[in-house]
Amino acid sequence: MPGNSFGQLFRITTFGESHGPAMGVVIDGCPSGLKITREDIQKELDRRRPGQNDLSSPRKETDQVEILSGIFEDKSTGTPIALLIRNQDANPKDYEELKDLYRPGHADFTYEAKYGHRDWRGGGRASARETVSRVAAGAIAKLLLKEKGIQITGEILGFDQAKVDSARADGDSLGGIIQITASGGPAGLGEPVFHKLSADLAAGIMSIPAVKGIEIGDGFAAARHRGSENNDEWIQKDGKIQPKTNHAGGILGGISTGADIVLRFALKPASSIAKPQNTVDKAGNPKTIEITGRHDPYLPPRAIPIGEAMVALVLADHLLLN
Amino acid sequence: MPGNSFGQLFRITTFGESHGPAMGVVIDGCPSGLKITREDIQKELDRRRPGQNDLSSPRKETDQVEILSGIFEDKSTGTPIALLIRNQDANPKDYEELKDLYRPGHADFTYEAKYGHRDWRGGGRASARETVSRVAAGAIAKLLLKEKGIQITGEILGFDQAKVDSARADGDSLGGIIQITASGGPAGLGEPVFHKLSADLAAGIMSIPAVKGIEIGDGFAAARHRGSENNDEWIQKDGKIQPKTNHAGGILGGISTGADIVLRFALKPASSIAKPQNTVDKAGNPKTIEITGRHDPYLPPRAIPIGEAMVALVLADHLLLN
Amino acid sequence: MPGNSFGQLFRITTFGESHGPAMGVVIDGCPSGLKITREDIQKELDRRRPGQNDLSSPRKETDQVEILSGIFEDKSTGTPIALLIRNQDANPKDYEELKDLYRPGHADFTYEAKYGHRDWRGGGRASARETVSRVAAGAIAKLLLKEKGIQITGEILGFDQAKVDSARADGDSLGGIIQITASGGPAGLGEPVFHKLSADLAAGIMSIPAVKGIEIGDGFAAARHRGSENNDEWIQKDGKIQPKTNHAGGILGGISTGADIVLRFALKPASSIAKPQNTVDKAGNPKTIEITGRHDPYLPPRAIPIGEAMVALVLADHLLLN
Amino acid sequence: MPGNSFGQLFRITTFGESHGPAMGVVIDGCPSGLKITREDIQKELDRRRPGQNDLSSPRKETDQVEILSGIFEDKSTGTPIALLIRNQDANPKDYEELKDLYRPGHADFTYEAKYGHRDWRGGGRASARETVSRVAAGAIAKLLLKEKGIQITGEILGFDQAKVDSARADGDSLGGIIQITASGGPAGLGEPVFHKLSADLAAGIMSIPAVKGIEIGDGFAAARHRGSENNDEWIQKDGKIQPKTNHAGGILGGISTGADIVLRFALKPASSIAKPQNTVDKAGNPKTIEITGRHDPYLPPRAIPIGEAMVALVLADHLLLN
Repeated sequence: MPGNSFGQLFRITTFGESHGPAMGVVIDGCPSGLKITREDIQKELDRRRPGQNDLSSPRKETDQVEILSGIFEDKSTGTPIALLIRNQDANPKDYEELKDLYRPGHADFTYEAKYGHRDWRGGGRASARETVSRVAAGAIAKLLLKEKGIQITGEILGFDQAKVDSARADGDSLGGIIQITASGGPAGLGEPVFHKLSADLAAGIMSIPAVKGIEIGDGFAAARHRGSENNDEWIQKDGKIQPKTNHAGGILGGISTGADIVLRFALKPASSIAKPQNTVDKAGNPKTIEITGRHDPYLPPRAIPIGEAMVALVLADHLLLN
Repeated sequence: MPGNSFGQLFRITTFGESHGPAMGVVIDGCPSGLKITREDIQKELDRRRPGQNDLSSPRKETDQVEILSGIFEDKSTGTPIALLIRNQDANPKDYEELKDLYRPGHADFTYEAKYGHRDWRGGGRASARETVSRVAAGAIAKLLLKEKGIQITGEILGFDQAKVDSARADGDSLGGIIQITASGGPAGLGEPVFHKLSADLAAGIMSIPAVKGIEIGDGFAAARHRGSENNDEWIQKDGKIQPKTNHAGGILGGISTGADIVLRFALKPASSIAKPQNTVDKAGNPKTIEITGRHDPYLPPRAIPIGEAMVALVLADHLLLN
Repeated sequence: MPGNSFGQLFRITTFGESHGPAMGVVIDGCPSGLKITREDIQKELDRRRPGQNDLSSPRKETDQVEILSGIFEDKSTGTPIALLIRNQDANPKDYEELKDLYRPGHADFTYEAKYGHRDWRGGGRASARETVSRVAAGAIAKLLLKEKGIQITGEILGFDQAKVDSARADGDSLGGIIQITASGGPAGLGEPVFHKLSADLAAGIMSIPAVKGIEIGDGFAAARHRGSENNDEWIQKDGKIQPKTNHAGGILGGISTGADIVLRFALKPASSIAKPQNTVDKAGNPKTIEITGRHDPYLPPRAIPIGEAMVALVLADHLLLN
Repeated sequence: MPGNSFGQLFRITTFGESHGPAMGVVIDGCPSGLKITREDIQKELDRRRPGQNDLSSPRKETDQVEILSGIFEDKSTGTPIALLIRNQDANPKDYEELKDLYRPGHADFTYEAKYGHRDWRGGGRASARETVSRVAAGAIAKLLLKEKGIQITGEILGFDQAKVDSARADGDSLGGIIQITASGGPAGLGEPVFHKLSADLAAGIMSIPAVKGIEIGDGFAAARHRGSENNDEWIQKDGKIQPKTNHAGGILGGISTGADIVLRFALKPASSIAKPQNTVDKAGNPKTIEITGRHDPYLPPRAIPIGEAMVALVLADHLLLN
């Protein structure tokens, strides 16, 4: 099964290469009657857009979205929603001098190992530019969730401007941790065994470029706790049975408890750095590489809307599965 | 899409309730000609079996596997492989006195929220007994991988017998971290965008009961590193281009590098503890609960073969996808 | 994607080879609370069973079904339902003398072309014995439909006992046409574009061994008609808007009209005949073949419950999709 | 699972409403390196285009295709191929006066029964305009097949210009039968049990608007034959084992024999006719309807490239599955 689709009933298929004519997404399964304006989608794309501040890539993309189908008079019609974002600042020549080198931390080597040659399949789809399609689709998932009272918010944990500035000054990059919270959702979302809400969230988040870990609730910290510390007592409050604490991060047995769904994911530092690095070329000859293109020294700010989008897509899917 | 299947080309469908007549699995997509003996499967089930030592549940299950189809004269035939494990020590009465209480840390409340009643759907499939099917299928995936030179091994990180003993003495439980390593695999496994090897591993591991986090390579630690520290230099060694270090845990851009695939997952402490806990009943009345059934105070030892099985299933699937 | 599963939300996975230890099916997605007795399933299997009269194969199979999971106290629990039917009269030796010949009309050559060797994959799964799993699953689909007021009945069109007897006397076989009618169903079943009810019915029916054609409503006859003859006028009757005639066979635009769903399928004559036939062996040498095993000269009677089962499975799936 | 995708490894997702801004398709799974020009696709669209002769609808659409992704310098890159066709002559007002009437033979009633209202979901996707996306995708599938030596051709069986003219003169329409032949393909295409080549072809063909039947090889005629007449003898010719005759239509046991794959499908007469018809409105009041819009009196000519496209898509998928 080709890898460019995600979700079961709220299902997206993305397309577009970083340096081709356009990016886009088809959303199949969005219920009819949902209010959707172009601005709702554009607003999320603007949050993700490069070139907004001095931390992110200077690539200039206005990322204007065009609605091709599935929305009529600002309402979803129930047919597939196709969204198109034209690339404007594609600049493949940036990459020519690197084409025989394996950039450390990048997928050059792995794509070449997979496809026998390093082609646009890799160059185009391994790029984080691909995530523009996720954010466009996630904007619609968010509208569906909002209608059910579910809000999704993201934030950087432990942001330290001094460390970021210092890395940038050194021609280096820095990783980070993003926390996403989905509040207002019902208990009961998630399917047994292999389509647990936690499993689908893990797949969605881990599919984001540069993500190396995900945890829910207390996550890795829970591994060091005793059951008596980690178990959330059940109480009745405001006429509603609910957990007193939320060590579980809103999910038990793979199914939502009704408490906030809280997850964190780890972004590795951006692989493209100006600092000289050792590597080899295709023939195995040692080389030194300095990556001088347009790149983010610090990915976390732009990863917030991307992480929110993936959480929204998973929750929208499980709302429909329920 | 119902939740009891996993994988695309090497695809398993599991069945069976904890307290019903039998557990089992159908594996569709195993190539023909693979050497498989009943003992190969039984050996893995024995590693997972309860009642082996004083740390695990005293439930007595011999977990003898019967091959129903797909294997003839110790070779896979290419048709679906069906495996059956009869339950012997099912004892639903253990649970009767708890049926109106919400056990802290358990899925009682969430399944009830989902299905409107707490039925066998939950009771049976939310139980970790379900994992016997995964281990049986994983045993076959391991044989397929072994033929390609891939070995999968698991271990507990930071095992501390004193802390475990102390928790048990207190009628409490303890979590833990399992590390799984897959070595000997080729570069090039994994699909772009949504079926990255990392994404499928995350889904598979996070679907195991009690897992609350997963990380690959340096994982969460990478979030605190600079690019120059985290990037693995490419070198040529023994005539092969490979990463000098393995911060990436064997996966870049979602595709395997050929280095060891290294992942860790966090198990929360077992939810069933003898220690009294506060909770409520269905009517919301405060209650105290002491869980006296047959339960593991310390899940990690039995989680090793389960984690190995899920990694094996994902890798077998991606071997065929490649 | 392996080929042994069918359906989306009411999804079956079948297993078992004609001459292996057992046949079976796992049904994932059956709603909980459906009343199901072992006898409900057995009754359908008995309708399909060989050895019932002098027209069908003398192979002796009592086809007793065992329920392994998913049903408790005669009710579905919502977990996967696994059903097992042990083979009793398997007799692989019957086939040994034919192992180097290509039987005309059989899949020997095509399976060998596909798999490089004629193995159990073919021998076991290409056999019509595989359909026992479909009928067992279909029995449960029928119960689900019955609860919604939907009845499925099949019949042979143009049955001619004299022609059948004459073919049998000549050591020959005869084809036939089966008509299946599903009555009592609602309007609105079917999905747009590629999962039209008609498309899924066509796939399900055409997957039955020996089926070479399927038509809905007037079918091929409609191709010779004018629109004014073929269009069904809409009328109001008994307070309900409905088609006055049913040339459409209950389906318009791929979606059910509420009128009877009527389809017919063509069964080719059984390929195994006692009459001598010309063929070649693996080396391409001309040979004469006489197939003396246990075979049906006339497949249609046993195809009725199989056709009904496939229609029931498709309708059950679309009931849930709706 | 939403209904707008088709295929497993060569998988298409279509979008666009008849009277919206654009139609399109995303093809996921096309291998890299395939030579594809815009003209290859345009040529197939031109064959399907309306307004070409006095038999087909006067709607004016130039159906110019734009390649959005997946093709670079006239070669597929392995990434998803997105194709866009803008609608030009959309004219929703044509339909306003009919909006409360149920047109005989149309999906108005069934879509309304399904969705509770007759919305764009139906109006847009039930229209045969949707098939422009299939033909665009099919053009690429044909290129993939051509590279393997497979040619697909379609023709109308029993075309009778006098009957067509007479129907048109009467403000009526006429059905027809299309035969599609795929020649040059290998033996061995098709998967066992539920993804037989015949089953997937049946699903693909029956999903085309207005199709009411499909048969393979002798099809319904085989039902009246004896085994000795219908079985194709195996012979060796030109050093190749092959069937002497082709009653099977190139498929045995659901798998290709290497002989021509031959299938026929029945198109009902177009439902939109100028001739007055009786029907009811939403309130059930009897009404007379005359459909004066832009419609085809005779669908078969335009159905040829559509049928060829669906056969090409199924064969391309099974080539990859093999």
